Amino acid sequence: MVTQERAARTRRSLIRAAAEVFAEVGFVPASLGVISKRAGVSNGALHFHFANKNSLAEAVEAEAAETVRRVTEAVRARQGDPLQSVVDATHELMGYLAQDVVVRGGFGLAGDIGRRAESPLRREWQRWVEESLRRAERSGVLARDVSWADAARVIVAATVGLEVLGGADASWLSRQNVTRFWELLLPRLADRPRVSALVSSGSAQLSAPPGRHPV
Amino acid sequence: MVTQERAARTRRSLIRAAAEVFAEVGFVPASLGVISKRAGVSNGALHFHFANKNSLAEAVEAEAAETVRRVTEAVRARQGDPLQSVVDATHELMGYLAQDVVVRGGFGLAGDIGRRAESPLRREWQRWVEESLRRAERSGVLARDVSWADAARVIVAATVGLEVLGGADASWLSRQNVTRFWELLLPRLADRPRVSALVSSGSAQLSAPPGRHPV
Repeated sequence: MVTQERAARTRRSLIRAAAEVFAEVGFVPASLGVISKRAGVSNGALHFHFANKNSLAEAVEAEAAETVRRVTEAVRARQGDPLQSVVDATHELMGYLAQDVVVRGGFGLAGDIGRRAESPLRREWQRWVEESLRRAERSGVLARDVSWADAARVIVAATVGLEVLGGADASWLSRQNVTRFWELLLPRLADRPRVSALVSSGSAQLSAPPGRHPV
Repeated sequence: MVTQERAARTRRSLIRAAAEVFAEVGFVPASLGVISKRAGVSNGALHFHFANKNSLAEAVEAEAAETVRRVTEAVRARQGDPLQSVVDATHELMGYLAQDVVVRGGFGLAGDIGRRAESPLRREWQRWVEESLRRAERSGVLARDVSWADAARVIVAATVGLEVLGGADASWLSRQNVTRFWELLLPRLADRPRVSALVSSGSAQLSAPPGRHPV
């Protein structure tokens, strides 16, 4: 049992160290030696857990995808206004991108041309946004002259832009910046009588990622 | 004279080949041997023009920046509605990203973590959008409850997102997609009486990049 726990801890350290190194130098120049040293484990221990650099990258992406899924499922479970769900999920996702190196590393790999692999992350985010906007349209929350597809496209493009710009300048990911984005967009997207009930800064139940500081 | 012309042509071929290879594999794995072969010149000719891979990348970025500057200056010279200028420039920029390998390669380098250099491209685009939105606010074209800074932030985030998503799926860069983006956004950004005068698909004088096909 103790050995299993230690193995799980080593695996987590390796994923975290790999995410850091991928985020710092990119996939191709990232060295397994640097990653194992950063994780405080031997090369042998790294190879016990991961066959090669690609399987490490897949583990980073899988853990980041798991976080995104947890965020979107928790937001959706509240069963509130689907537009408010998208607002809340955007705040949480940007918070993780600012604070969680595995989420940042996972999205970084999605945009890393040297990785040469389809990343599930952006596609899953896009699918969730589209599904939420479809629900918003069906439930009459969306403004009548706005289609769910157009609304989803703008939201996906803007959130990918915030993610990418946030890599160089974290202020793009701040709660204030995301709030302003929604203050601008919601009056256009929401059916008029509903706008005042929507909270651009995120609804109160919004949970902060562990260790997240106000940004 | 003939020699100078030939040298200029070789330089252009090398910049184009480098942009292609950077866009295909990223900065770090790009090989000078592959670039000179792709350009149809010797390694010696490459080194006559460029000291190293970094100076090639700088030349790609400089040529892409020059194209962006030409687009924004031409659009601005029309002295029309500053919001229409931003719409037109966005259409032209996305057209170049879809069709011009040097512009695509230049923006790709801006997002390439292995490059480890400040790229002027996104920053210059952001500065131009901000300046145009400031003019829109001053001239009363912007909706009264929208600040130029918030409008610029949304436009910059969304256009960076389109650029990045367009690298994997060119439909994000299509005129139709960019038009829908503006159809959604303009009714929120523009002062109400002005909206009907604005053309989401770009004003008629819009020039297509050389060899551009309808997308």
